[in-house]
Amino acid sequence: MITLDLVLPDTAYPIHIGRHLLTRTDLLCPHLPIHDAVIVTNTTVAPLYLAPLQSALEANGVRVTPVILPDGEAYKTSETLNLIYDALLQRHCERKTTLIALGGGVVGDMTGFAAATYQRGAPFIQIPTTLLAQVDSSVGGKTAINHPLGKNMIGAFYQPRVVLADLALLDTLPERELSAGLAEVIKYGLLGNAEFFQWLETHMPALRTRDMGALQEAVRVACRMKADIVAADERETGQRALLNLGHTFGHAIEAGLGYGAWLHGEAVAAGMVLAAETSAALGWLSPREVDRITALIAAAGLPVTAPDLGVNTWLELMAHDKKVEAGKLRFVLLHGIGDARIESGVPTSVLEAVLTGRRITGRGRTTPA
Amino acid sequence: MITLDLVLPDTAYPIHIGRHLLTRTDLLCPHLPIHDAVIVTNTTVAPLYLAPLQSALEANGVRVTPVILPDGEAYKTSETLNLIYDALLQRHCERKTTLIALGGGVVGDMTGFAAATYQRGAPFIQIPTTLLAQVDSSVGGKTAINHPLGKNMIGAFYQPRVVLADLALLDTLPERELSAGLAEVIKYGLLGNAEFFQWLETHMPALRTRDMGALQEAVRVACRMKADIVAADERETGQRALLNLGHTFGHAIEAGLGYGAWLHGEAVAAGMVLAAETSAALGWLSPREVDRITALIAAAGLPVTAPDLGVNTWLELMAHDKKVEAGKLRFVLLHGIGDARIESGVPTSVLEAVLTGRRITGRGRTTPA
Ligand SMILES: NC(=O)c1ccc[n+]([C@@H]2O[C@H](COP(=O)([O-])OP(=O)(O)OC[C@H]3O[C@@H](n4cnc5c(N)ncnc54)[C@H](O)[C@@H]3O)[C@@H](O)[C@H]2O)c1
Ligand SMILES: NC(=O)c1ccc[n+]([C@@H]2O[C@H](COP(=O)([O-])OP(=O)(O)OC[C@H]3O[C@@H](n4cnc5c(N)ncnc54)[C@H](O)[C@@H]3O)[C@@H](O)[C@H]2O)c1
Ligand SMILES: [Zn+2]
Ligand SMILES: [Zn+2]
Repeated sequence: MITLDLVLPDTAYPIHIGRHLLTRTDLLCPHLPIHDAVIVTNTTVAPLYLAPLQSALEANGVRVTPVILPDGEAYKTSETLNLIYDALLQRHCERKTTLIALGGGVVGDMTGFAAATYQRGAPFIQIPTTLLAQVDSSVGGKTAINHPLGKNMIGAFYQPRVVLADLALLDTLPERELSAGLAEVIKYGLLGNAEFFQWLETHMPALRTRDMGALQEAVRVACRMKADIVAADERETGQRALLNLGHTFGHAIEAGLGYGAWLHGEAVAAGMVLAAETSAALGWLSPREVDRITALIAAAGLPVTAPDLGVNTWLELMAHDKKVEAGKLRFVLLHGIGDARIESGVPTSVLEAVLTGRRITGRGRTTPA
Repeated sequence: MITLDLVLPDTAYPIHIGRHLLTRTDLLCPHLPIHDAVIVTNTTVAPLYLAPLQSALEANGVRVTPVILPDGEAYKTSETLNLIYDALLQRHCERKTTLIALGGGVVGDMTGFAAATYQRGAPFIQIPTTLLAQVDSSVGGKTAINHPLGKNMIGAFYQPRVVLADLALLDTLPERELSAGLAEVIKYGLLGNAEFFQWLETHMPALRTRDMGALQEAVRVACRMKADIVAADERETGQRALLNLGHTFGHAIEAGLGYGAWLHGEAVAAGMVLAAETSAALGWLSPREVDRITALIAAAGLPVTAPDLGVNTWLELMAHDKKVEAGKLRFVLLHGIGDARIESGVPTSVLEAVLTGRRITGRGRTTPA
């Protein structure tokens, strides 16, 4: 087991990474202020992992209330959130009752938001069960639910007390979900760690066959990078926005195709390719680098070509992204592998060219495809 | 105009108290990060005060979206909250759009919670229009909505950027609402300021006739005390709980009669009398002090006798109060006027005696009424 620490101005918490951590009550129980916990999970994860966690806690004298939500991004809503509140109130849970998220990013985001808002803040623990949740959503304290008019529009910054990333839980993860998680892993290499990018180029086959050593290293580096970025900018007033590499394009893909058609990680994957192409069109990235990026994403089993939404739909959808500020579209673009920067002055003509697939090389000159 | 400052570890904000502040855009506009604001108000307050505020902001180039909610505690729900989110998203508001609460505690609590959670936190301004909101709910950053199973159960700690307490707005406040606000004003004297209690005994008639000088002094002292308590204990881990004087009993009255039957301030008034009687039963307060307290509350036009809920209902309702910790009922009791303390070891027999109206004097000895 490896333990990382995320140190913030108001709090600090450990991120434990290893195998068979699910029943390690020695890691969990010290974070429960009273012997009362609610485990929030979903219909897919519950049959796999709820019983061992619940028994382990109960054996330590903790009263456990399981809340089993329907599975899927479509249920990341205020209605589902109310199921958590209902259970908490029906069991007369106090504000010191700990909410434990046992699931992927959907369960984690909703449970975190429920914890942030139950009696103005209850203790919260993350046990991420997808690769995406282990390397991304469980660390850093962003919590949210969706609104019919936008994804993650309602939420809070609210940090967990401990994160338990049990790699053994990834054994049952569908292949497609594993790849989706790898998209976010690749993102860390691209945005700030060229050496890690290179390591990924070598170890992608091992990751895809779930080699535990390789997975542990990938989760460790990703969590370390995320923890450092979050520590420097908890509320995303600056550098934390780098984590949105590929996401402005990606969110447009998710919204444009209807949520659920592509997985978030898949949309981010194609979005990172578009970000690379935009960077190349501006002369900031070489065609060779674009090729390396595209190849690694493909090797992770991820899509490298975005769907054709039509250029107007693209621009319209991106204009409504949460990252818009003072009406300006902001992109995270690359000045090299491992060197991402936030840019708000990308000419629409360049975006149009990239989105319509016209080949562009260097400082915005376009050539027919 | 008087300005107080509330200084917290992470933020600080001014509380302006005076007449005709509603259109003082010089006090408001410096707190808007972009020229976009949503004014949340209700069907009663909008016809009175929305137009002048909206025009003043628009004259300064601010885009204003008004959101007019139905009036009443019954609407402090997730459904009404969604009306705010809907408006924000329909107008494509960014996370820097400022939410301005123009109303009493209900509007303030809901708007604050919407601001706390819109895109994980949008700027927020309080313009309290009831006495209760000016002396209590607008200061300190507690925000919340109700859940069918409990009042204020869903919420967040989220501070405004500025509070504008315009005393002139109180001119239109119904008499009963004015008295309800006075209950919270009296609370400050009781919990920590014997001199202010005495000042209130003298100035209660002037307050009830809305003498602006008296109101300004009452709001100033109350806000100063609340600001100091909140500054010392933002998240209510200790002394902030003193502000709940009369509230454990009061919440039981509100819940027991059904919300809306008694106003919150009325329930707190009767609750403070019960707290005084409990303190007397434990020998901590003299009968003379109980009489002074009862007399001041009556002079404010408030009820001094709690409704008869039946002792079992009382105990049951209080056991579900949010202030319960590790299963223990906690009360704020008085060791003198101006000297409140948190107590968790009140014998049930004493509570039963007080609640059934049996006269008790000193250390829990009971005598038939
Ligand atoms: N908070 C953040 O910082 C942050 C960051 C990135 C993404 N997110 C959010 O995370 C969500 C996506 O998370 P996700 O990719 O984990 O999706 P998910 O939670 O929907 O999980 C994917 C699927 O895998 C199943 N599953 C989970 N663990 C499993 C296991 N061990 N074995 C078998 N099946 C398992 C789930 O039930 C689900 O069907 C999105 O809502 C996104 O907005 C949040
Ligand atoms: N956040 C906190 O710290 C805190 C503290 C105390 C109370 N509260 C909450 O505050 C709420 C009670 O607040 P309230 O007493 O202001 O009730 P309220 O908001 O319901 O207002 C009372 C009535 O007065 C009307 N009104 C408001 N301003 C008026 C004006 N200037 N002229 C004429 N009518 C006016 C309102 O429309 C309403 O009908 C409760 O929900 C309570 O939980 C919160
Ligand atoms: Zn992502
Ligand atoms: Zn109150």
